Amino acid sequence: MSERVAGFRFAGVHSGIKPSGALDLALLCADRPAVAAAVFTKNRVRAAPVTIGERRLRSGVCGAILVNSGNANACTGRQGRQSALALSRAVASALHIPAGLVVPASTGVIGAQLPRSRMQTAIPRLVADLSEAGAARFARAIMTTDRGPKMATADVKVGRTVCRVLGIAKGAGMIHPNMATTLAFVTTDASISRGPLSSLLRRCVDTTFNRATVDGDTSTNDSLFVLASGAAGSRDIGRGTAGERRFAGALHEVLESLTQQIVADGEGAEHLVRVEVSGARTGTDAVQIARTIASSQLVKTAIFGCDPNWGRILAAAGRSGARFNPDQVSMRIGDVPIFRDGAPVAQAHTEAKAARVMKQAQYTITVTVGKGRGTGHYWTCDLGHEYVRINADYRS
Amino acid sequence: MSERVAGFRFAGVHSGIKPSGALDLALLCADRPAVAAAVFTKNRVRAAPVTIGERRLRSGVCGAILVNSGNANACTGRQGRQSALALSRAVASALHIPAGLVVPASTGVIGAQLPRSRMQTAIPRLVADLSEAGAARFARAIMTTDRGPKMATADVKVGRTVCRVLGIAKGAGMIHPNMATTLAFVTTDASISRGPLSSLLRRCVDTTFNRATVDGDTSTNDSLFVLASGAAGSRDIGRGTAGERRFAGALHEVLESLTQQIVADGEGAEHLVRVEVSGARTGTDAVQIARTIASSQLVKTAIFGCDPNWGRILAAAGRSGARFNPDQVSMRIGDVPIFRDGAPVAQAHTEAKAARVMKQAQYTITVTVGKGRGTGHYWTCDLGHEYVRINADYRS
Repeated sequence: MSERVAGFRFAGVHSGIKPSGALDLALLCADRPAVAAAVFTKNRVRAAPVTIGERRLRSGVCGAILVNSGNANACTGRQGRQSALALSRAVASALHIPAGLVVPASTGVIGAQLPRSRMQTAIPRLVADLSEAGAARFARAIMTTDRGPKMATADVKVGRTVCRVLGIAKGAGMIHPNMATTLAFVTTDASISRGPLSSLLRRCVDTTFNRATVDGDTSTNDSLFVLASGAAGSRDIGRGTAGERRFAGALHEVLESLTQQIVADGEGAEHLVRVEVSGARTGTDAVQIARTIASSQLVKTAIFGCDPNWGRILAAAGRSGARFNPDQVSMRIGDVPIFRDGAPVAQAHTEAKAARVMKQAQYTITVTVGKGRGTGHYWTCDLGHEYVRINADYRS
Repeated sequence: MSERVAGFRFAGVHSGIKPSGALDLALLCADRPAVAAAVFTKNRVRAAPVTIGERRLRSGVCGAILVNSGNANACTGRQGRQSALALSRAVASALHIPAGLVVPASTGVIGAQLPRSRMQTAIPRLVADLSEAGAARFARAIMTTDRGPKMATADVKVGRTVCRVLGIAKGAGMIHPNMATTLAFVTTDASISRGPLSSLLRRCVDTTFNRATVDGDTSTNDSLFVLASGAAGSRDIGRGTAGERRFAGALHEVLESLTQQIVADGEGAEHLVRVEVSGARTGTDAVQIARTIASSQLVKTAIFGCDPNWGRILAAAGRSGARFNPDQVSMRIGDVPIFRDGAPVAQAHTEAKAARVMKQAQYTITVTVGKGRGTGHYWTCDLGHEYVRINADYRS
């Protein structure tokens, strides 16, 4: 089985949160306390599990993560906090580990209390469901409006040992940087200590999860965890080694794949689009321009309509705050040049070709804004009727 | 007739830009060169008429404004600039005034060249159509996706003379501050010199047009002009006088009315919503929070769905960048308290009452974020299927 990683077991059950009867309670369990690092939402309003999880992970180790979907346990005050604590105590007790090693995570509707007793009743079943092959069930149990589970793996050689990185994430709305726009759980059997793991995580998140937008909203619950068991038996990954570079590559690959899966499954999305900006004065400028284009409602509705509306792309770039000369701007949609040195290319024929590219499930919009060296990208998706339908009716 | 203002005439004809045959060319003409001030888009990408208009208005006087709808004359390079200059020359010649006194303005699709010869042919008809009672035709001729024309008037006493302020604007997409998100034309028969007129305009825009969002996009063509003819025969409005305060009030009233009309006609919008924030540390913080709530796609789809989803409102406030304590937040929808001191009020019953308020065409969402003195507001509308339909298909 490719979705295993030594030293971890996974589970997913239905506990009664989702009226549909779908899986809604998930557990990730390390055979022995794993080295752990995490990044959390920068929203000032934070769900109870985020506050608890962040504090507990200061120890640098984690034994288990209990995740529920269908309820964010956000804006639930003292009672919400008590529920998160009680549920993680129940898991700790079932796993015979200290409560401080259990981290809670939640995703779903804001402001409703967790059905704590139903969830508590489900915990023995959940623990019994734990299995090395359980990652797919875990991935399904953390879904909310996702169309499907999101997993990615990469293998990496550390010394002579092949280590694995397995990532599992959920989308799909409230997706925008700062950070992380989702719940994601990465496990690896590599051996690495807290400091380097945490640095690698931050670096990789900056160019993956933090380059994705679905709707510009940052949630109250975003959390991304990385747990390293060391169970592959490799040597410890030291700072500045070739092993660290390769491991960073694998971690980046997994996070990048999850990022793309999340945006492609942006609520109702039909197109995954990479906005690639080059020629900016700085990298920061390039990312700023890419972010503004990727977040523009007008660009996103044009993507939905398969309309190569370069005017909206240019107008978004123009309000990004980055400095550039509009007369030096060129644009391609896929391989089709549609705008060159500040003016549209040909017309009719060009636009028809570009419109055909835009019918694809995935493509790139390339924008060159000058002769600078700054480059940057952002992932986005279309804004269509499904997005409106899903979000107008989300709670009803 | 209430839509007249002494010293100005207005016209609107169909010149052949809009395939529908609707009015698409408008002219505003001052009997004698009027004192003029204006604010323009802060987008780095600016349409040809914006560049020309800004330069010409440095003189502080304006004889006429030629406006077309259906074509923005943006990203049209040298040819676009030549067209704008040639058309304003043609108007100047027909009106027997210097070309430098004619200001061009355009709104519509970006990147297509104006049908210059058709428009030139229409100019004699346009000039012949000029009339003191022509404001309504002018207002219709500047519309793009607007459902209807947008006009507002206010009367103000300066000394013993009653002066009038008449504003005409168009929406409806690419609406977000910086500045002004639209074309707007304000005429008055009051007598005022350039300096005070320009200061008053900037002050009033900041709390009206710059407090409105439809979709977060700032256009390449936004322009707001104020022309004062002095034809009412009042004394000159001096700085710091009671007359100036009353005139500022009338100007504010007209701009505020146009702002509300524009947002209420946000593309496909069914609800005009005022987001009112108080208790922030500063006024800047309050506006920042109001803007983030008003711009949130998730809040705007909840408004469309008449869903009192305070969780999304709170989450938007939380990512605004302003500092506040979530435990001190309270919220009302209309008169219905739905959230108090960081926790939801009651539930079911409350939410049903709030949902009823949200079925109204206009209401206020009030958010108190603490005990500070900072207050601020923003106007927004719902994001629904019509917005997607209009913007996915705009050019086809």
